Amino acid sequence: MTKDIKIAIIGVGGVGKAFLGQLASYIKKNSSTVSISVVYISRSSAALISRDYAPLPLTTFVSEELDAAGTAPLAVPDLIQFLKSSGKESILVDNTSSIDLASTYPEFLKAGIHIATPNKKGFSSEESLWTAIFSAAGNNGGSGGYVFHEATVGAGLPVISTIKDLVDTGDEVTKVEGVFSGTMSFLFNEFAPVGASGAPKAFSEVVKIAKDAGYTEPDPRDDLNGLDVARKLTILARLSGLEIASPTSFPVQSLIPKPLESAATSQEFMDGLPNFDADIGLLADEAKKEGKVIRFVGSIDVPSKAVKVGLEKFDISHPIAGLKGSDNIIAFYTKRYGDRALIVQGAGAGAEVTAMGVLSDVIKIVARIK
Amino acid sequence: MTKDIKIAIIGVGGVGKAFLGQLASYIKKNSSTVSISVVYISRSSAALISRDYAPLPLTTFVSEELDAAGTAPLAVPDLIQFLKSSGKESILVDNTSSIDLASTYPEFLKAGIHIATPNKKGFSSEESLWTAIFSAAGNNGGSGGYVFHEATVGAGLPVISTIKDLVDTGDEVTKVEGVFSGTMSFLFNEFAPVGASGAPKAFSEVVKIAKDAGYTEPDPRDDLNGLDVARKLTILARLSGLEIASPTSFPVQSLIPKPLESAATSQEFMDGLPNFDADIGLLADEAKKEGKVIRFVGSIDVPSKAVKVGLEKFDISHPIAGLKGSDNIIAFYTKRYGDRALIVQGAGAGAEVTAMGVLSDVIKIVARIK
Repeated sequence: MTKDIKIAIIGVGGVGKAFLGQLASYIKKNSSTVSISVVYISRSSAALISRDYAPLPLTTFVSEELDAAGTAPLAVPDLIQFLKSSGKESILVDNTSSIDLASTYPEFLKAGIHIATPNKKGFSSEESLWTAIFSAAGNNGGSGGYVFHEATVGAGLPVISTIKDLVDTGDEVTKVEGVFSGTMSFLFNEFAPVGASGAPKAFSEVVKIAKDAGYTEPDPRDDLNGLDVARKLTILARLSGLEIASPTSFPVQSLIPKPLESAATSQEFMDGLPNFDADIGLLADEAKKEGKVIRFVGSIDVPSKAVKVGLEKFDISHPIAGLKGSDNIIAFYTKRYGDRALIVQGAGAGAEVTAMGVLSDVIKIVARIK
Repeated sequence: MTKDIKIAIIGVGGVGKAFLGQLASYIKKNSSTVSISVVYISRSSAALISRDYAPLPLTTFVSEELDAAGTAPLAVPDLIQFLKSSGKESILVDNTSSIDLASTYPEFLKAGIHIATPNKKGFSSEESLWTAIFSAAGNNGGSGGYVFHEATVGAGLPVISTIKDLVDTGDEVTKVEGVFSGTMSFLFNEFAPVGASGAPKAFSEVVKIAKDAGYTEPDPRDDLNGLDVARKLTILARLSGLEIASPTSFPVQSLIPKPLESAATSQEFMDGLPNFDADIGLLADEAKKEGKVIRFVGSIDVPSKAVKVGLEKFDISHPIAGLKGSDNIIAFYTKRYGDRALIVQGAGAGAEVTAMGVLSDVIKIVARIK
């Protein structure tokens, strides 16, 4: 008996395109055991809709085609109705970072539609949305659709699945600590490398290198404000059992100098940044005198319910200090694992590895569908 | 609709006891969504059998009870018949290290019975058994039972699930490298620590410390022969797509000095070991002169199909050199992750973390059962 599953995909940016490529290969390779048809692909302005539920071609797909198709995207209630009317199990893949779309997850789930997504917004915004999503979902035995979001933290790294396995098997997570942003990882591995000799680079210089290489958001302030890390910490803290009102309900250190918060453009921000190199340089020097380096980390202390994001000093022998490139590192301390953490490390950003996290979620949903 | 699942457990040693404790908590906590009954528990000499499929009590269970019960264990065909006759989905949990039991997995799977196990034998012995298991299993869309074996490598660490996610989503594993034995990790982290000063300990002395602390098998030769690591490498190489005839079909370095292989008892072996301290001491000294340390590692190079197990030298800044305690470290190099590995690290042995790996497999099977 071959499973017959319909997929709707929203978002065709870098991750969305990589996902379409990987999904096309997966569908081809597994066609003898499962029949997966992508019946809807949309971006903000346009959509391809297969009204008869025949599979849309994926191999030749480019976003230009989407625009050329000229169909307006369906409103959420219409998309839900469209998927339900197929009479088959269906999956929504949300490859956007839209809070508006994430806010409608409960409606999809209640309709029995499954969700796989790297979009952090649904899981890291107001607590009421988190509760609404998991009340509606079928993950814990309910009748709703399944929702999986591995790629919301660490892209394709096994982070969400690991913390879920720990908690589900009855372990107690006591502390989570790590570097959760590829951009922040790169900035500090370059700015304050272990065993550096010679004149150090200025922080503004490193930000410029990262920006030019495409390692930052178009406006680097969207990385430097710490909110991306705060959202990831919110998700892991909630999975550890803590109630977190929002990603701004705990201390988050912003690396944007106060006077530059209001800079009108990212260029104005970049032009002003060298004026503040002395401040962060001083912190790095202080750490160096203690045999340490500074890193931008997040931590969750479960017993004291303390969540925080910001700069910390680490001994140069600490795994967090030794990180390279733009790698993430996530250390889970639990009752069973005791003093020595369970550690996951590797690339935590990039279109292909993020898409891989989303596809592995789709595969898990397919496996759960009879 | 509450799922109704029957479980048979074979093996009540350290891992088996820890598993029973964790399972009892899981059953209690999830009783509103799933009904799990342990209907069979056995050790080599005795069994508890619930002929009417009512749940056996788990909280008060001790192995003495098992012996006192006085029932002989069921032969495999009878156990299969007993589980099938329940009319419910059922799971075999094999907490033994028996090759005889592992050889019968295909029969369980063909009968639709699912399997969760930390027993390496079924997956690391002759290739024909591997093929028979996965031909019979329903993991890839067939009609047989599901088989999961996370705890066969790295205990509860996400190793098997990670390599499966990589391969299933279409990534290509190019190389796997790491320290796969808690015992070997401890021995070399103690014998050749990074940054050691003062007189080093003799290797035989470290083996004695490890044996006295219960970190080795009763006869340390069962660790030092490298076969445990070779079995884990066999599993990962097969999951990476290589054909491996058996765990002795590639180079495996034994740390047992030739003349001591035939020592009649483990005591005779321990008494003779100091005579060979000079040899391994020389290797450690040579490495030290190059700024390196020696570690007992396994590696799989997929393009060249080269699998090997033995001592290698690592620069002191290498993550493998910096390992602590009895931690495992497993580095996956893939096409998508490029030069920087996806790394999983942490305790890779111990009853509680091994049992956790088995229970997380049971939970995954339960999620896949409708």
